[in-house]
Amino acid sequence: MALIVQKYGGTSVANTERIKAVAERVVATARQGNKVIVVVSAMSGETDKLVGFAHAITERPDEREMDLLLSSGERITSALTAMAIQNMGHGSMSFTGRQVGIRTDSSHTKAMIESIEAGRLTAALDEGKIPVVAGFQGIDEFSDVTTLGRGGSDTTAVAIAAALKADLCEIYTDVEGVYTADPRIVPDARKMDRVYYDEMLEMASLGAKVLHGRSVEFAKKYNVPLVVRSSFNQAPGTLVTKEDGGMEKVVITGITHDKNQTRITLKGVPDRPGIAARIFNAIAKANINVDMIVQNISSADSATDLSFTVSKAEADRAFEITQKISEELGSKGASINKEVAKVSIVGVGMQSHFGVAAQMFETLSREGINIKMISTSEIKISCIVDVKHMEAAVKALHESFNLAKG
Amino acid sequence: MALIVQKYGGTSVANTERIKAVAERVVATARQGNKVIVVVSAMSGETDKLVGFAHAITERPDEREMDLLLSSGERITSALTAMAIQNMGHGSMSFTGRQVGIRTDSSHTKAMIESIEAGRLTAALDEGKIPVVAGFQGIDEFSDVTTLGRGGSDTTAVAIAAALKADLCEIYTDVEGVYTADPRIVPDARKMDRVYYDEMLEMASLGAKVLHGRSVEFAKKYNVPLVVRSSFNQAPGTLVTKEDGGMEKVVITGITHDKNQTRITLKGVPDRPGIAARIFNAIAKANINVDMIVQNISSADSATDLSFTVSKAEADRAFEITQKISEELGSKGASINKEVAKVSIVGVGMQSHFGVAAQMFETLSREGINIKMISTSEIKISCIVDVKHMEAAVKALHESFNLAKG
Repeated sequence: MALIVQKYGGTSVANTERIKAVAERVVATARQGNKVIVVVSAMSGETDKLVGFAHAITERPDEREMDLLLSSGERITSALTAMAIQNMGHGSMSFTGRQVGIRTDSSHTKAMIESIEAGRLTAALDEGKIPVVAGFQGIDEFSDVTTLGRGGSDTTAVAIAAALKADLCEIYTDVEGVYTADPRIVPDARKMDRVYYDEMLEMASLGAKVLHGRSVEFAKKYNVPLVVRSSFNQAPGTLVTKEDGGMEKVVITGITHDKNQTRITLKGVPDRPGIAARIFNAIAKANINVDMIVQNISSADSATDLSFTVSKAEADRAFEITQKISEELGSKGASINKEVAKVSIVGVGMQSHFGVAAQMFETLSREGINIKMISTSEIKISCIVDVKHMEAAVKALHESFNLAKG
Repeated sequence: MALIVQKYGGTSVANTERIKAVAERVVATARQGNKVIVVVSAMSGETDKLVGFAHAITERPDEREMDLLLSSGERITSALTAMAIQNMGHGSMSFTGRQVGIRTDSSHTKAMIESIEAGRLTAALDEGKIPVVAGFQGIDEFSDVTTLGRGGSDTTAVAIAAALKADLCEIYTDVEGVYTADPRIVPDARKMDRVYYDEMLEMASLGAKVLHGRSVEFAKKYNVPLVVRSSFNQAPGTLVTKEDGGMEKVVITGITHDKNQTRITLKGVPDRPGIAARIFNAIAKANINVDMIVQNISSADSATDLSFTVSKAEADRAFEITQKISEELGSKGASINKEVAKVSIVGVGMQSHFGVAAQMFETLSREGINIKMISTSEIKISCIVDVKHMEAAVKALHESFNLAKG
């Protein structure tokens, strides 16, 4: 008997018909002899509706209030899904984040999970019930509701799978798995049967929308096998696992892109120790995530340019902070560019292959695409380009690295 | 400095514009030097939407799941209202039922409040903040969410006012107060400036929609002055207080009606002790509230007819139980009539005036209205009539007891 955590995203539970379909899939899995725990997102559109309400009331909603507001969506789905499972004649019970003991820090709207008790989950499983957990939420030391930020329900699912040592965590969504590139941009992109945690991690954080980075990190840390698959059909999906080193890996696994990028540059920064720390401390204190950071070697006048990227939603706040620090430091001012996108190639194989970076830059150059920032890790290379060149870049790289079907 | 609890019903917080208007009223009250605690209902339509989802999924939704589902509506409003108050430059904080320590029993969908801690409320008030509490909900000993049933947000408001010894509890709704009869039926019905708890209690339980009986009971028990008023204008509303005995009371205060009635009759019941207890125990165990109960003296064959009324929503379940008991008792069967309504006259004054009942029956008789059941208390007389006669009965009684304006 396997223990399987199944997480259903917003489109999978978009309406009561979809919720009934999810209940059928859940009960079928249980009747095959498995113990099943379900984690659900808000019905698609629900979160946007609530965010719309908040913004109709105030420009900058308080984050504690935002968390109470947004946590409602998943609670609604969990109750409805438990009802739908009960209606099929199987015992079920909904649980909020608090009720399954998901304790987080107090970083409202992007809280981090600190611990999971899960005693009520095992009790429900022991009674033969299917627990349905409201994803995306927890509770902090003050007993206030917190939410886990983007991809929060995935994180809930993986964290529960890790805490209960589940055999498998299935992430149900509206696509059939992880592709070598976005099929809307590259029509012959190929669905992968399998991808490694590290690759998925780079792809998730780089804009492949199917799975959020934090959940993959969690899965890697606790070695939880993940499957990304569609709740709309029976296709097997993509398995995300640890590296086995057994087979000869292809060099590049996939091409990802991310339009949600803004580049901020601080010009003529004095080349002294501690400057970068000061800037990024101030930004971290404002709870803003920085993505790429690039600093050039200093020029003759002992001043350097420092560029970084943040998400569009946080760009204006980050820019304000940067301008203030620019004045304090006496630098040559700050600039902001929202018309950029990030294009990346990802693959464990590139670690042992030379020339991958050169091939990427050449491919872009051949297309007449100017590269504005470059950042590399062991298994990915990212370039910031003008947003108008993004699609052409993805297509050219997908072809250049020979990722197409068949 | 007075402590005022303000409760806003669904139409008062129906959309973000209304929520902003509520915030203005709340902040104005605070700026007049009062401490204010706000209790909110779900945005009107929201609860119906959620109930609709549940019924699209299953005919008989589990009540524990129903409570988690429905409690979301008030949480949403509380977060949005706190944001709207903050947006006016005043400190505010939302609280769920759990967070203000509203402990209830485990009767899901109609839980009773057992205790309120309210420590976080006083802490927030001490910090100069306006707490906004999600009405209608609490938490039971298993840490599960419960809801308080119909009029639950009124009950929350009055319970908090009692726990914190508030000076006043204002119930904001979409009517200007309590009327001598429903103005939609009796156009010259008069708004009362003042009504006694006991009168309001009879009127609330008899179908005057403005204020639920449980909240009035709570208010009476803890002597919390209530004001029922409109959030759409500045009219002063109706004050609900204890009897002062000082003035010469009018005989009849108001006429109420209730269409949500079904009469169930058990025919030919053996006239033995314990029969009524057996029936009403079985019905109470099914968590069904019985309203009127009438049993006639037994006829020559030592058998009697027993009639009672329940709400329409619970009629079929109550009838099933009654039929089963009818068989067990060997009675002459059970019947059900959904086409009935209750019309009542209410007034503290009738205790010391003779002939009130006679005047009521005569008035109905003159209109050709047949009375199917009669039930009386010290301050009210209720008659069950055919639903088609209900409006005529209310109009005739309003005129007969001289309740019109001017």
